[in-house]
Amino acid sequence: MNTFGNLYRLTSFGESHGAAIGGVIDGCPAGLELDISFIQKALDRRRPGQSSLTTSRQESDQVEFLSGTFEGRTTGTPLGFIIRNQNQHSDDYENLRDAYRPSHADFTYQQKYGIRDHRGGGRSSARETATRIVGGAIAQLALRELGVSIIAYTSQVGTIQLNKSYSSLDLNLVDATPVRCPDPAIARQMIELIEQVKAEGDTIGGVISCVCCGVPTGWGEPVFGKLHAALGNAMLSINAAKGFDYGLGFEGVNYKGSEVNDLFYRRDDGTLGTKTNHSGGIQGGISNGSAIYFRVAFKPIATLLQKQTTVDKNGQSIELQVKGRHDPCVLPRAVPIVEAMAAMTLLDYYLLASSQSKARSKS
Amino acid sequence: MNTFGNLYRLTSFGESHGAAIGGVIDGCPAGLELDISFIQKALDRRRPGQSSLTTSRQESDQVEFLSGTFEGRTTGTPLGFIIRNQNQHSDDYENLRDAYRPSHADFTYQQKYGIRDHRGGGRSSARETATRIVGGAIAQLALRELGVSIIAYTSQVGTIQLNKSYSSLDLNLVDATPVRCPDPAIARQMIELIEQVKAEGDTIGGVISCVCCGVPTGWGEPVFGKLHAALGNAMLSINAAKGFDYGLGFEGVNYKGSEVNDLFYRRDDGTLGTKTNHSGGIQGGISNGSAIYFRVAFKPIATLLQKQTTVDKNGQSIELQVKGRHDPCVLPRAVPIVEAMAAMTLLDYYLLASSQSKARSKS
Amino acid sequence: MNTFGNLYRLTSFGESHGAAIGGVIDGCPAGLELDISFIQKALDRRRPGQSSLTTSRQESDQVEFLSGTFEGRTTGTPLGFIIRNQNQHSDDYENLRDAYRPSHADFTYQQKYGIRDHRGGGRSSARETATRIVGGAIAQLALRELGVSIIAYTSQVGTIQLNKSYSSLDLNLVDATPVRCPDPAIARQMIELIEQVKAEGDTIGGVISCVCCGVPTGWGEPVFGKLHAALGNAMLSINAAKGFDYGLGFEGVNYKGSEVNDLFYRRDDGTLGTKTNHSGGIQGGISNGSAIYFRVAFKPIATLLQKQTTVDKNGQSIELQVKGRHDPCVLPRAVPIVEAMAAMTLLDYYLLASSQSKARSKS
Amino acid sequence: MNTFGNLYRLTSFGESHGAAIGGVIDGCPAGLELDISFIQKALDRRRPGQSSLTTSRQESDQVEFLSGTFEGRTTGTPLGFIIRNQNQHSDDYENLRDAYRPSHADFTYQQKYGIRDHRGGGRSSARETATRIVGGAIAQLALRELGVSIIAYTSQVGTIQLNKSYSSLDLNLVDATPVRCPDPAIARQMIELIEQVKAEGDTIGGVISCVCCGVPTGWGEPVFGKLHAALGNAMLSINAAKGFDYGLGFEGVNYKGSEVNDLFYRRDDGTLGTKTNHSGGIQGGISNGSAIYFRVAFKPIATLLQKQTTVDKNGQSIELQVKGRHDPCVLPRAVPIVEAMAAMTLLDYYLLASSQSKARSKS
Repeated sequence: MNTFGNLYRLTSFGESHGAAIGGVIDGCPAGLELDISFIQKALDRRRPGQSSLTTSRQESDQVEFLSGTFEGRTTGTPLGFIIRNQNQHSDDYENLRDAYRPSHADFTYQQKYGIRDHRGGGRSSARETATRIVGGAIAQLALRELGVSIIAYTSQVGTIQLNKSYSSLDLNLVDATPVRCPDPAIARQMIELIEQVKAEGDTIGGVISCVCCGVPTGWGEPVFGKLHAALGNAMLSINAAKGFDYGLGFEGVNYKGSEVNDLFYRRDDGTLGTKTNHSGGIQGGISNGSAIYFRVAFKPIATLLQKQTTVDKNGQSIELQVKGRHDPCVLPRAVPIVEAMAAMTLLDYYLLASSQSKARSKS
Repeated sequence: MNTFGNLYRLTSFGESHGAAIGGVIDGCPAGLELDISFIQKALDRRRPGQSSLTTSRQESDQVEFLSGTFEGRTTGTPLGFIIRNQNQHSDDYENLRDAYRPSHADFTYQQKYGIRDHRGGGRSSARETATRIVGGAIAQLALRELGVSIIAYTSQVGTIQLNKSYSSLDLNLVDATPVRCPDPAIARQMIELIEQVKAEGDTIGGVISCVCCGVPTGWGEPVFGKLHAALGNAMLSINAAKGFDYGLGFEGVNYKGSEVNDLFYRRDDGTLGTKTNHSGGIQGGISNGSAIYFRVAFKPIATLLQKQTTVDKNGQSIELQVKGRHDPCVLPRAVPIVEAMAAMTLLDYYLLASSQSKARSKS
Repeated sequence: MNTFGNLYRLTSFGESHGAAIGGVIDGCPAGLELDISFIQKALDRRRPGQSSLTTSRQESDQVEFLSGTFEGRTTGTPLGFIIRNQNQHSDDYENLRDAYRPSHADFTYQQKYGIRDHRGGGRSSARETATRIVGGAIAQLALRELGVSIIAYTSQVGTIQLNKSYSSLDLNLVDATPVRCPDPAIARQMIELIEQVKAEGDTIGGVISCVCCGVPTGWGEPVFGKLHAALGNAMLSINAAKGFDYGLGFEGVNYKGSEVNDLFYRRDDGTLGTKTNHSGGIQGGISNGSAIYFRVAFKPIATLLQKQTTVDKNGQSIELQVKGRHDPCVLPRAVPIVEAMAAMTLLDYYLLASSQSKARSKS
Repeated sequence: MNTFGNLYRLTSFGESHGAAIGGVIDGCPAGLELDISFIQKALDRRRPGQSSLTTSRQESDQVEFLSGTFEGRTTGTPLGFIIRNQNQHSDDYENLRDAYRPSHADFTYQQKYGIRDHRGGGRSSARETATRIVGGAIAQLALRELGVSIIAYTSQVGTIQLNKSYSSLDLNLVDATPVRCPDPAIARQMIELIEQVKAEGDTIGGVISCVCCGVPTGWGEPVFGKLHAALGNAMLSINAAKGFDYGLGFEGVNYKGSEVNDLFYRRDDGTLGTKTNHSGGIQGGISNGSAIYFRVAFKPIATLLQKQTTVDKNGQSIELQVKGRHDPCVLPRAVPIVEAMAAMTLLDYYLLASSQSKARSKS
């Protein structure tokens, strides 16, 4: 259950305050040029300490590959990699050894396993997602050769909302601000809100939107492996994720079929397309050639710097004052994680579809 | 990819207009009394023709078990079952042989497989979900012995919304109206809306809410097998589902951590609980002992009885007038499907958790 | 655990004396012509009552397909099928309700599940293998288009042994005798031995050899998915199988590397091959283009018609006299089962290899 | 395909001449004391350079755990570990860059992936099995608490055969000689043979036997997950393995059912057992409480120090003289690998059985 994917698979390991985190990527196509600087850049977008909106922990998150490549290319064998942990202040967490932070995984881990590493959240820390960035970046390298691109961005922080379709945004601006919202005016408001919340020792939630262009028709399995179900599963595995929808999603329930059906037509080049894309690029669980877009809801991070009433493992009521360096808002750093999970899912489904279409053409 | 689950697994087969649909349930605990009337009642809640809100197709949906039981009890071996198809009017679909219904799976199946059964939607028909009802009903029988209950209900149709928490509803009233909304006044409005839409030959979307009570702490895997990700994957595999959230979900992004964190306290009986349940019963991917609740968004069904402009497989523009008997709204019949998918997911995660906790106590 | 395969998957169900056995074949390439008479012929080779060497039970083993085809071709959706049970004499087994046959699965099923269907061996009956024949025959149809052929034959019964390589045999003669040994003289001796054993109410073991021609290089996964490990797993899942080896196998341990290494050379057509094939067509877990050959050892069937001392479930010592109609030797009917399991394995690995090679050529 | 197991899972990575090999162990029971010296001792039994019978390469094979433990105990989260490669002489392999060693994986890897790391055999090197030792040692720690012990030993080298049952051997003597045969006289002959073969620059095959005591009834799945099929799959995944049998295996085909059936009786303590154990501790794929024993055949290692005729990747005929330090016989170092694979398989099946039996007792 620490493995993600069917044919392209990431197995991840590691706790926040252990020696290292890392993973194994299995099923990566052979012969792919492993662009390390591309992968490191992706890690840098997620790493802590990159702006005033994020935790001040400084971790360089340098990835070391241990296997699976030869003379700069992937060989089809598994890619093992590690990222050493650094800059841990384990002492900051000593008062969490027996205490359960409200809305955090402390309690459920203790109940499930009878033992837990309380330092820095242990395995439940979002630090684990750095391994997904590695898996996702390599998937993106492979998808790039297939003409597929994936861009995520912050579309809501608290009640500050970006009410525009992806097609009317300049997605080159995502990284122009530290909040990763491509609309500069909205981004400013989001940044102000996060800074205000941070000053209060509080946290705030939000929404990330993502769009995947260039996916051809035919990726996705019709019943239990629907492409959007796989994407939903991937997104809901990200820390603090509370919801997922695609296409018109929850908003679309307000409409009639006649208002939102995507009518087919023939393009000038003879291919078939749809005039609108309310479906979000997927029909019956299978990609239809249009852009795939979806949203992921994130709750405010559970770890506050405010005093909270809770209990310890003996059931004693305590006042808990968390120390340490924490993010006031998960959104800015979660943008590359959403992209990574989308990339791994899409490459996995490309490989599944490949075996089928090759089989079909033969028979 | 027609198999759902890890240890409790349903493999489903069947098209709308083939000889039969059916499935194989593997991993069902041995010694369970197989209450056939309970299973049949669950099927009856999903079957077509049960009210004026649903398609007028009459199918009795009688399930026949072929294996896996001995003298009324499950034996631990796989349960094979079939449901014969009846009352098909395949001729109604002849004009769909080469046409692609807007926002339907016709186009993507054809592209993916190069061949499709156009009659009644073939494999993409929601008829397939009857097999899930069987798998889910048996899971519910097993969960009942563990004290777990699952209730779903319609909480929105178009813009008619039930704005109440599950805890303030009388969930015994779910089946009191054919729309399966437990608030009689709201239910009436929903019914009116569906009937109006039906009269127009149109369709309408909505939201189903679901609450699972009695799940103990410890079900769920921390990283890629988070309990809510599994539930999300399950729900998004249902036909016409477009979104999923749990706990405060998309609504919760508007709040600060200090407003929505669930504070722990010690109950009078010495056990630990939370004062609120904004988390939706799951923390860090693992059940925390509180009620699990979530929502599923459904789009308006793609198949309208209105004329639509589309193309055929040669790219010719056509005016399509669909015949046949179709639902104006998926919600009423989807309520038991949501329950079935939740039940299969929960039983599966119970079995996963069992192996771990037994292992733990030994070592 | 009633599902076999990764991408081409058979899920089987059914007991010997239930209503029917059957299965679901998932992942079959779309567009394949479903040659029902080919499949039925394969079933006829396995069915009971076909000769004096097998049980006298008469079952026609007619397969009924319920889904997954359209106008004679597979559609890429799962193929559900059933084979009704007939000619059962459940009363013959009444004295086995509480008794444990020596070396049979009666005891272990009872211990594992706390309940079992004692009639005809229930799920542990080799009757279940009829579903594998269906899955295997369809795999053979697909493999045939790829130029792959699979032939198994009886190479040993008791101490009567066929000491010839597959390449010196006329494999067209396999079905010339009911024992399915392609050497007529040896076949006669085997038949005599089986008839003698049958007259004694006893049973006898043996070995089946199998050769797969036309498999190109590149099928198989290098570490835990080695092609020969997958074949071994497949063969050892057949009832009464006790051993598996491939290439020189157990015999080859006697040799030095210099005696058995297969030297590469360039064929006249420019392709590379090996002068000998001691490896059995697989190197490092991956097919090398030579014929794949292997052996499967089968123990004498546990169910004798002689009186045996055993215990019942209360631990009482009893004299057990089994009634019913049983095979004196599993070999003749196991030949098509070996072929079926090989075919499913090879098609599965073809599909796995397809996704990889397509991925490779793109990247 | 670099992951082994269902609930207890090892994912391995690494090439012979890369930076490190390593793996991730997922599903290990929580709360287990991680006895590092036990694990290191297991690695030492496999490491090169331990005696004159093995390669002279000196690698200390120190394992470094990176995650999954807290204060000396496992936490239920994945155990990541690495073993740095040392003492590589990559230059020794330069003449293998384009050459295909006879009966080695060079050719098939190149064909499958279009690229390979030729140094030290790359991924096809038996070096990878060190990761299995780690996974197996931890499994043995868990099994020890369940009363299960696993002992393997060399029972044949070339034609020198140990013709004794495990029950008549003193298994404490396995490590008394470097060849790991518990019969001192036979061991001496084996050692002589290996030294002679080594002097010739040749290699020799053999057989390893293994016995697992203390496995209770009920481990194993009846159809496609038979315990012996899982063991066979595990053993055949070991480098150079060519065959597997259990119980009487290939030898047992010579007997009649009446000669080899294991008769049940009631022991003095009231439990049920069998008078003989020809079945090898498994009936119908499920453990029956008796000792499980099996054999694994290993071919002579393909890499000789003799000159061999072969081709390079352009099809040119070449005389190949391999350099480097190679084992003359795989057997002595494969003994702990057989134990490791058996341990991982048994723990995995214990976990599978646990979920079932817990489920059963509840329902």
